[in-house]
Amino acid sequence: MQRVLWTALASFALSLAAGPFIMKWLHKLKFGQTIYDLGPESHKKKQGTPTMGGIIFALPSLVTAAAFSVAEGRFDFLPMVLVCTLGFGLIGFVDDFIKVKLKRSLGLTPMQKMVPQIVLSIGLSFWAYFNKSIGSSLIVPFVNVEWDLGWFYIPVMTFILVGTVNSANLLDGLDGLCGGCSLIDFATFSVICGVLAGRSAEGAGNFINMAVFCAAVAGGIMGFLRYNGHPAQVFMGDVGAFYLGGALVGVAMVTRYALLLPIIALAMFLSSLSDIIQISYFKATHGKRIFKMAPLHHHFELSGMPETKVVTMYRLGTIAMCLLALTGII
Amino acid sequence: MQRVLWTALASFALSLAAGPFIMKWLHKLKFGQTIYDLGPESHKKKQGTPTMGGIIFALPSLVTAAAFSVAEGRFDFLPMVLVCTLGFGLIGFVDDFIKVKLKRSLGLTPMQKMVPQIVLSIGLSFWAYFNKSIGSSLIVPFVNVEWDLGWFYIPVMTFILVGTVNSANLLDGLDGLCGGCSLIDFATFSVICGVLAGRSAEGAGNFINMAVFCAAVAGGIMGFLRYNGHPAQVFMGDVGAFYLGGALVGVAMVTRYALLLPIIALAMFLSSLSDIIQISYFKATHGKRIFKMAPLHHHFELSGMPETKVVTMYRLGTIAMCLLALTGII
Repeated sequence: MQRVLWTALASFALSLAAGPFIMKWLHKLKFGQTIYDLGPESHKKKQGTPTMGGIIFALPSLVTAAAFSVAEGRFDFLPMVLVCTLGFGLIGFVDDFIKVKLKRSLGLTPMQKMVPQIVLSIGLSFWAYFNKSIGSSLIVPFVNVEWDLGWFYIPVMTFILVGTVNSANLLDGLDGLCGGCSLIDFATFSVICGVLAGRSAEGAGNFINMAVFCAAVAGGIMGFLRYNGHPAQVFMGDVGAFYLGGALVGVAMVTRYALLLPIIALAMFLSSLSDIIQISYFKATHGKRIFKMAPLHHHFELSGMPETKVVTMYRLGTIAMCLLALTGII
Repeated sequence: MQRVLWTALASFALSLAAGPFIMKWLHKLKFGQTIYDLGPESHKKKQGTPTMGGIIFALPSLVTAAAFSVAEGRFDFLPMVLVCTLGFGLIGFVDDFIKVKLKRSLGLTPMQKMVPQIVLSIGLSFWAYFNKSIGSSLIVPFVNVEWDLGWFYIPVMTFILVGTVNSANLLDGLDGLCGGCSLIDFATFSVICGVLAGRSAEGAGNFINMAVFCAAVAGGIMGFLRYNGHPAQVFMGDVGAFYLGGALVGVAMVTRYALLLPIIALAMFLSSLSDIIQISYFKATHGKRIFKMAPLHHHFELSGMPETKVVTMYRLGTIAMCLLALTGII
């Protein structure tokens, strides 16, 4: 497992070194964040902080994942996960680019953003379905039963893919929040993949590559957090959040542990859920709200909790959920 | 290893639940921190924040470490580590108590603080020396050679014990700094002890107990960080820093991996080193300073880096060093 540790360290070193150059470049191109008009009042001061900082972890993690991956065994998982990660990352990139160039806070229209995501997700679901190392079943954690969904796998996995990626994007709203929680998520999946590699015989190489990939992303996030920690000098942007969401759900898909996502990525899950509850309740009651603001982290902020405290709470909760998830594996 | 994960989760839940009660009690007893007169100007506003919050992780970690430890194999390590942890914790407690009751910012005099530490350390060094599972040798990491120090083990280990505990105390100067770095340290030592347990036959129980103990402390710190994260509602105080330092060096001593401490606990090490360099240089030059202020984290602060950024940097650096240390074990 030395390979996995060195991957994380190399990716961390690269993103730490690349950070200042990428930030300078983003500043020059005026990729300053146009703060979402409906966010909390206190966030107005964040106007002008460069966005698209996700590039700081995206490039180093790709380079190190490629450099440290192994060719042994069947080489099934890595190409699929890379397409998933880069595909979603690209959609996020286009959205960021339009936001900045047109100075329009919301980027692509919801429709323009959703259609390519759904197309990509359906394609990935079919790819996984027909892959002999993956197929149509999910592993039910804790009881360790394989649950074969048959053709139903396609719509379910499409929903999980689109849902996770957009949840990651919703979580990205406070300094170091999405990055910090994702760091813990990828570290956990790296351990899970390492354990699975040790257990499987012919497919070990596949799982080693996933452990390496997760370590590469985790290391890249570490470097990014150096600059994104409060007070943030850069935001990850949609390119970053979509990249992380795509990478996370990609690994969950190929390892067949997608059902662990609501535990490991609970913070993302709650962001979506609170948004859905808020909007549904608002529509049903013609104007009443359950949360002071959705996603949930803004509710805590508006309830008087300092931004840094909310982030601390989310990170600690994520560690606890990841430990819980690991009890179902180790 | 499920036992280890559950220990951390139980300890986290306990400290999270105990936190508000302990803070209320500290408030009632007026255990507010009398901020060190020589600290940065900006820290004056922290006056009145209750100290001795280390109790929030100390009690839950003791309870869970005891509850989840195993009696199998030789029961050599845990009693020694508990004496080390509680012994140093008690010295810290007395120091805090005097600070608060006498409203004297520095607590015990340096002499009153040092003598019991040295006596305790010599006692522990002899205990380890005569313990058949420990003895007089240290493991040199990375090359994995046993280095037998003979009788020289006593002064060396005494120095390591006193040095580590006081370094932990020096690191405790910013919100979530000592707690955050220690959390990573204990998680790492828990993994190391888990790996050592898997490798050793008759002594496995000893190492399992150490993995459990480290997880208990790590979980306790997680709960504490909920309240100690910036802006801190409570400080750990000397009782907390001495407890953590004692626990950390205790585990390093019994596992014979004390030479990993400068890597895993680099943040603590740098705090001491910068203090020593600053004072020596000041004396040699009759009044010149190398750092704007020592320990090092205050230097970064006074150089214009926000407190939360310094803490982020230290935590990320600690993760990297711990990954590096693990390459020598796994």
